[in-house]
Amino acid sequence: MKEIGNFIAGVWTPPAEGGRRVMRHAVTGEEIAVCSAAGVDFGVAIAHAVEKGGPHLRAMTFHERARMVKALALFLNERKGELYALNPATGATTRDGWIDIDGGIQTLFVYASKGRRELPDKHVALDGEIERISRHGTFLGQHVWTPLQGVAVHINAFNFPCWGMLEKLAPTLIAGMPAIIKPATPTAFLAHRLFELIIESDLLPEGAVQFVAGGAGDLLDRLGCQDVVAFTGSAATADHLRHHTGLIERGVRFTAETDSLNAAVLGPDATPGTPEFDLFIKEVAREMTVKAGQKCTAIRRALVPAAHLDAVREALIARLAKVVVGNPENEKVTMGALVGCRQRDEVREHVRTLSDENPIVFGDPDHVEVIDADPERGAFMGPVLMQCADGFAARRVHDTEAFGPVSTLIAYGDLEEAAALVNRGGGSLVSSLFTHSGEVAAEMVARTAAFNGRLYIMNRDSAKEGTGHGSPLPHLVHGGPGHAGGGEELGGVRGVFHYMQRTAVQASPDILTAITDRWVPGAKTITDRPHPFTRDFDTLEIGETFVSPEREVSLADIEHFAEFTGDTFYAHMDEDAAKANPFFDGRVAHGYLLLSFAAGLFVEPNPGPVLANTGLDRLRFMKPVYPGTPIHVELTVKDKTPRNDEYGEVRWHVRVLDDENEACAEYELLTMNARAGATNA
Amino acid sequence: MKEIGNFIAGVWTPPAEGGRRVMRHAVTGEEIAVCSAAGVDFGVAIAHAVEKGGPHLRAMTFHERARMVKALALFLNERKGELYALNPATGATTRDGWIDIDGGIQTLFVYASKGRRELPDKHVALDGEIERISRHGTFLGQHVWTPLQGVAVHINAFNFPCWGMLEKLAPTLIAGMPAIIKPATPTAFLAHRLFELIIESDLLPEGAVQFVAGGAGDLLDRLGCQDVVAFTGSAATADHLRHHTGLIERGVRFTAETDSLNAAVLGPDATPGTPEFDLFIKEVAREMTVKAGQKCTAIRRALVPAAHLDAVREALIARLAKVVVGNPENEKVTMGALVGCRQRDEVREHVRTLSDENPIVFGDPDHVEVIDADPERGAFMGPVLMQCADGFAARRVHDTEAFGPVSTLIAYGDLEEAAALVNRGGGSLVSSLFTHSGEVAAEMVARTAAFNGRLYIMNRDSAKEGTGHGSPLPHLVHGGPGHAGGGEELGGVRGVFHYMQRTAVQASPDILTAITDRWVPGAKTITDRPHPFTRDFDTLEIGETFVSPEREVSLADIEHFAEFTGDTFYAHMDEDAAKANPFFDGRVAHGYLLLSFAAGLFVEPNPGPVLANTGLDRLRFMKPVYPGTPIHVELTVKDKTPRNDEYGEVRWHVRVLDDENEACAEYELLTMNARAGATNA
Repeated sequence: MKEIGNFIAGVWTPPAEGGRRVMRHAVTGEEIAVCSAAGVDFGVAIAHAVEKGGPHLRAMTFHERARMVKALALFLNERKGELYALNPATGATTRDGWIDIDGGIQTLFVYASKGRRELPDKHVALDGEIERISRHGTFLGQHVWTPLQGVAVHINAFNFPCWGMLEKLAPTLIAGMPAIIKPATPTAFLAHRLFELIIESDLLPEGAVQFVAGGAGDLLDRLGCQDVVAFTGSAATADHLRHHTGLIERGVRFTAETDSLNAAVLGPDATPGTPEFDLFIKEVAREMTVKAGQKCTAIRRALVPAAHLDAVREALIARLAKVVVGNPENEKVTMGALVGCRQRDEVREHVRTLSDENPIVFGDPDHVEVIDADPERGAFMGPVLMQCADGFAARRVHDTEAFGPVSTLIAYGDLEEAAALVNRGGGSLVSSLFTHSGEVAAEMVARTAAFNGRLYIMNRDSAKEGTGHGSPLPHLVHGGPGHAGGGEELGGVRGVFHYMQRTAVQASPDILTAITDRWVPGAKTITDRPHPFTRDFDTLEIGETFVSPEREVSLADIEHFAEFTGDTFYAHMDEDAAKANPFFDGRVAHGYLLLSFAAGLFVEPNPGPVLANTGLDRLRFMKPVYPGTPIHVELTVKDKTPRNDEYGEVRWHVRVLDDENEACAEYELLTMNARAGATNA
Repeated sequence: MKEIGNFIAGVWTPPAEGGRRVMRHAVTGEEIAVCSAAGVDFGVAIAHAVEKGGPHLRAMTFHERARMVKALALFLNERKGELYALNPATGATTRDGWIDIDGGIQTLFVYASKGRRELPDKHVALDGEIERISRHGTFLGQHVWTPLQGVAVHINAFNFPCWGMLEKLAPTLIAGMPAIIKPATPTAFLAHRLFELIIESDLLPEGAVQFVAGGAGDLLDRLGCQDVVAFTGSAATADHLRHHTGLIERGVRFTAETDSLNAAVLGPDATPGTPEFDLFIKEVAREMTVKAGQKCTAIRRALVPAAHLDAVREALIARLAKVVVGNPENEKVTMGALVGCRQRDEVREHVRTLSDENPIVFGDPDHVEVIDADPERGAFMGPVLMQCADGFAARRVHDTEAFGPVSTLIAYGDLEEAAALVNRGGGSLVSSLFTHSGEVAAEMVARTAAFNGRLYIMNRDSAKEGTGHGSPLPHLVHGGPGHAGGGEELGGVRGVFHYMQRTAVQASPDILTAITDRWVPGAKTITDRPHPFTRDFDTLEIGETFVSPEREVSLADIEHFAEFTGDTFYAHMDEDAAKANPFFDGRVAHGYLLLSFAAGLFVEPNPGPVLANTGLDRLRFMKPVYPGTPIHVELTVKDKTPRNDEYGEVRWHVRVLDDENEACAEYELLTMNARAGATNA
């Protein structure tokens, strides 16, 4: 028997003799591993995280942490064969393992990429725009995100030991918070190997991650307002944790993602014979059988128009009849085992509760034919389909989850009824809708979005690129209200911010510039340097400013520009028509003429570190420029983001001013600039 | 005695005989009003909110609700004299009343304005950008916000009966959620009059607001996953509510904003004689005396460099000695009464606890001279300043809040110590820092932001426009971690989203366009209409597209443009230098030349509904355009936002394509377009 150790304060210790929990092979029932959290000193673990892990991680920028996560993803990708080797012992097929193992590694890659694209190469991230809270702009507001200074406690579920660990770890590490990871016992042997690989990679700083299998001891009693508990598991356990007096009284941030009674709705337009009907059948069957239905996002309630109930049932049964249950290592098998016999017995009990109300129309929870395995020793169960007689009278179908290959058909009348039935689930992680009608989709979103963390709308146009009803994506929020736990995970950088504090900072433009390392309008500028286009990316400082000479915009310029470009819009060409316009007193210069002249005024023409103009943001024309007006430009380095060793992006704040020094146009210009020592600098 | 009724399901009912609670005049101690929640049927109240108020509000767009809030603000502003008349009975001076009454009305105005500027004139708001979750773009992700379908229960504090009601109501109404408002009993007579005015205005739809004074009965037991409880008050009450089994098990969204041990830090650079030193003294004294210190944001801990402790104490005492306590209706009075004698006795008790550890250096909690009032009958207390001997050894100063004109001086050594002392408060609504140094500010933000909802950084540059340490602004988040309740309110549209659900929607471009009423790239376009520049704002449909003819970009064009504008950047002019650039194979067209030609290609020159080009967003140059390349433009109506009866903003998606139909540039163009029937259409 494998001994699953604990990794606390940088040291692996074997499981104590006391408090041991045994893990069994899902297919053979054999005892394969043992763990124990007895004797673990959680005070030491927290101190290690807070005193070592946190400071190490916070010393890095978002980009440095993102690169670390990418390196970890690459390392794990090389070694994932070791994880696949342990995968069948959880009852999972290779396809199931792909969701868990490759899906988890992919989540690291996506977070590494988003961390570098959507967060700054800095220690503080911005939330929203500058708030102008004063008339003259000497006192401004800016919301910022900074890392929490405690520890993130990750309590993971048994069904996805790898994905579950990595989908929580990626945003936590990028936020700059250390983690203590507690896997669910039944599959801790696989989580443990993954964690060992993370430690073997030697890519994370000391104290960034710790691991304890078997129990949380007094860990929760020791947390405070800088700590986070991120829980995935049953709704009952989540409620139990929410009652924890220590968590409440010391203001511990708590988030839960729990199983829910997710629905799939066949749209009223998706009649038999339409592609949407076929997609629906396929999706319900797939969600019932992937991971043997042990997915918190699986379809538990399949809602279909009453007129098509029979057709759906027949099509679904035909599909389910083809499912091959058995040893997941046998290639013919399409559905493996549940994680263990205890879990299978629980599912059977829930099916009994459900089937009192909703008769079984396919399958038998107590008997299943399996190939290449012993059905008495392995945790096998075949797919079970029930049918509800009256969705509004029924109760169990909306509140009882059988966490296995189990689903129930429910008929509905009109869309309002369908939405009401979806919402009876009391909050779901995800609901899906199969429709080709924009009106149907818009109405269902209006009626059901508030009850769902995710809505998956599928039809013929998206069929080839569908990602699956039950698949959370790192880009999208995973979580849901009410029964689904009321929490949120993932969702790109949203998930990172769960491990950070949002703070409103009020200060002068100079102070805000110092805090955010980003030039804030109104802050001091640096004007005693050579032209900023002559300075390489690394030398250039935030606030460096070029003030251009003046150039008059003449009527001849406007007419010439109109003729050259073809932009003969009346406001530039026709004095009377321009005057009749509520915004102008007469012919005005083209906005694009101003932009073009502005570039002519600020550009340094000779080859130098500026490589390309890559874009422009937030351009606003603020004051019309009439013929004869002299304009000049102020160009200020607002922000810098290194992209690689060769170049980085410079964001310039540009103001086009008239002879009264009032802004006619204001925008942010983007250029790619060579770095110090790069070939093109 | 005034009878304070309850307003449930559209009907005012007088307080029942049972369960009565009496309100007293803060200055005279007289009984002035009575309320009771006995007999209120909260089931009826919730049903009314959910069945009437919610649907009525959700039928409106964000802009319609924002206009309703503005109308309410205008109405209340006309009638605010009635509120000021009741204000002295709460113990508040006119200046205190200004924060409560005008501050509350101002919050409505800000929300009305932000609702129209930052939210769409639609039913669904977007969160973030489209997520490209598929390779070919046939299946996309978009996070959306939709209103929760339950009721918001607002449990307000006694200190700001008007502001407290309106700062919760503004975001709730704009979100589209109905509210049940429960004011704190001691000042319910003022909250009641404000609520009566709201009903008298007749501006809100049926069921949008209800009012109950005196108790919440079984209200909390009846809530579910679509409901919100927004609580303001003591940390102890918040913890009590958090333990509420019904709230936990039915997934009720709960947010709390509680009193906290807020700190003000005198920066190490802010030595005596600097403007920052004087600003600090003024702010600490002001925060102690405004509202007689009954502010959840007041400065309870004043942190000063050890070297300047004596100077600070003397300056502060000199200032506090000038405070005139008494009847708030007397113009000489600078600090009124606490809200009642019970509250004053509580403050005295907390001062006793605190002063065991931190000796009093100014004031006497048990005796105060007052003018124009009877100190025995009114709830008076003079300012009390204490001094802590050792901030790290002390405990009470960091956990015990005397909710009155009370503060404690604490000395610190270096910045790290100052930050550690701030953080000992276990989470605050706000901390302030008085410094003129960007380095000091940046270090303190890094060290303390995670423990604070707001950081107020003040110095000579912002002094004239400071908004006050203790003043939450509608633009900025109000709330804080840990001891401060762990919740968030306000913060502009962030506060609106507390009453909405965020949902990740996955669908095809066409379906997302139908759901969001905003054209999504990849969705169908409408190309069989007249040129979109000839169609007025109201007639123009989302998706209408103009495809321009081609135009070749010649080397002569590039040279001519360079000469005309002065933009002779080497990548356009010098073949060898351009080739040496990592992004180009040779001379390329100016980005601004492409924009200008694009406008020339899509513009319809004759006078028509397009009034002006107002700006441009998210321009990205994606592919270099070399001399000889023919380009053309696709211009699509992406979004429309009415601004007034005369015109509205149209957001166009613009793609500049080359002869391989690949995008060279992509951007969003903004124009202001005349509405149907407007003078200029």
